[in-house]
Amino acid sequence: MTFTQKLKEIQTKQNSLLCIGLDVDPEKIPEHMKSRANPVLEFNRQIIEATQDLVCAYKPNLAFYEAMGEGGLTTLRETLMLIPKSVLTIGDGKRSDIGNTAEQYAKSLFNDFGFDSATINPYMGFDSVEPFSRNPEKGVFLLALTSNPGSKDFQRLKVKGKPLYEKVVQAAKKWNKNQNIGLVVGATHSRELKMIRKIVPDMPLLIPGIGKQGGDLKSVIRNGCDENGQLAVINASRSIIYASSGRNFADAARAEVKKMVEEIRAYKK
Amino acid sequence: MTFTQKLKEIQTKQNSLLCIGLDVDPEKIPEHMKSRANPVLEFNRQIIEATQDLVCAYKPNLAFYEAMGEGGLTTLRETLMLIPKSVLTIGDGKRSDIGNTAEQYAKSLFNDFGFDSATINPYMGFDSVEPFSRNPEKGVFLLALTSNPGSKDFQRLKVKGKPLYEKVVQAAKKWNKNQNIGLVVGATHSRELKMIRKIVPDMPLLIPGIGKQGGDLKSVIRNGCDENGQLAVINASRSIIYASSGRNFADAARAEVKKMVEEIRAYKK
Repeated sequence: MTFTQKLKEIQTKQNSLLCIGLDVDPEKIPEHMKSRANPVLEFNRQIIEATQDLVCAYKPNLAFYEAMGEGGLTTLRETLMLIPKSVLTIGDGKRSDIGNTAEQYAKSLFNDFGFDSATINPYMGFDSVEPFSRNPEKGVFLLALTSNPGSKDFQRLKVKGKPLYEKVVQAAKKWNKNQNIGLVVGATHSRELKMIRKIVPDMPLLIPGIGKQGGDLKSVIRNGCDENGQLAVINASRSIIYASSGRNFADAARAEVKKMVEEIRAYKK
Repeated sequence: MTFTQKLKEIQTKQNSLLCIGLDVDPEKIPEHMKSRANPVLEFNRQIIEATQDLVCAYKPNLAFYEAMGEGGLTTLRETLMLIPKSVLTIGDGKRSDIGNTAEQYAKSLFNDFGFDSATINPYMGFDSVEPFSRNPEKGVFLLALTSNPGSKDFQRLKVKGKPLYEKVVQAAKKWNKNQNIGLVVGATHSRELKMIRKIVPDMPLLIPGIGKQGGDLKSVIRNGCDENGQLAVINASRSIIYASSGRNFADAARAEVKKMVEEIRAYKK
């Protein structure tokens, strides 16, 4: 089964388009957790246990784990073990390198850590992407139009009258021989999201930037889904995992997830 | 002292523009090393000991260490300890992420591992670069025109008549308030290198792609140096570290380095 098929199946079974970004900063987890042997792992365990029936994916951002050194990688590995097979994992590392080196990254993310998919920065072109898309079961999300202010610096530059990010969308469509390539489009750009969905009606779109970054959920759902109300992966991180800084953080996360999932279901109609 | 000043000083003291890419694949190291407790670390130790008086920098590519898991990060950390302060280190990870996350990567590379500089993918714009360039003593090399075949896919697209990579060069020049930003330009593009050096006469240029990838050393030196014959950092990896697969690999690496350094000195005249 290709990654895109697997995503559809999981979104159907879970009846959810929501992805939780496990971007855990040790300084931001609740005080009462800090005396635990591995506070970040215990934090992740409780978040995952409280939300796993309501989401289609978890997306750990590698930067947060790398910032904790070797122990951080072990925590990431152990976190991945806690995620049930009924939910997808996205290794958010935005890697890019020449083919020979990209193979090493793909090996690390897909074989060693066992991620189902990864985010990739497309700037270096086809041979930097191909090692990640070689296995149809593993997914690749290419950065197209990101949610941050800097997205205007290069991504929106006009190439023959079209913005650069559209060139990335067209390339991703062309490279998608294995039906396992998707795109990252920030929730802060809902008009562009609509246009991108028109170009790639059947590709997964990973959409971060809901919540803290200010993206509007309703327009993201209306513009980002495929014709069956699927293939949009709506990511929220800080608004969920830091919903409460108290002992009830996992319950608060679940409540926030539930609210979002219900909103998403309502907007899909 | 800013990173750019430090690079100049080190290139003068070492009388060398050469950087060795420590991109060590455990499968490619000499057979007789494979029974060692940590073959990659021992391999790096011997390469560094044999070449440290002849180079201005070492550039480990993070992918190769990450592919070895947690132990790989420890090996990277221990490798960095073996590099004398008289030589710079470049953490080649080509990272890119939104500001909040880029800070985590910068913390990992500069504070935890202690790299002197890092390579960054510019596609996400200013806020993804700024956390790396905040400290003037730490250097940032932004990917402009990379050495691989995929560099044509996006980097050469025309924006108002100019290639995209030139927009990156112009942005890097504008963002270089702390005199610590440089650019990555592949040795396989010597004509473009000349044009880029004209736009940024006083910024460091990291130039990979000599050797295995086919870049021509003479034109790279003539086109990539500043007016004092400095600020080009010429990287070679596989042609040096795998110069021999026998017991003499470190001597063979030194001989290859010596040959390249002498060629570089000759071409500078």
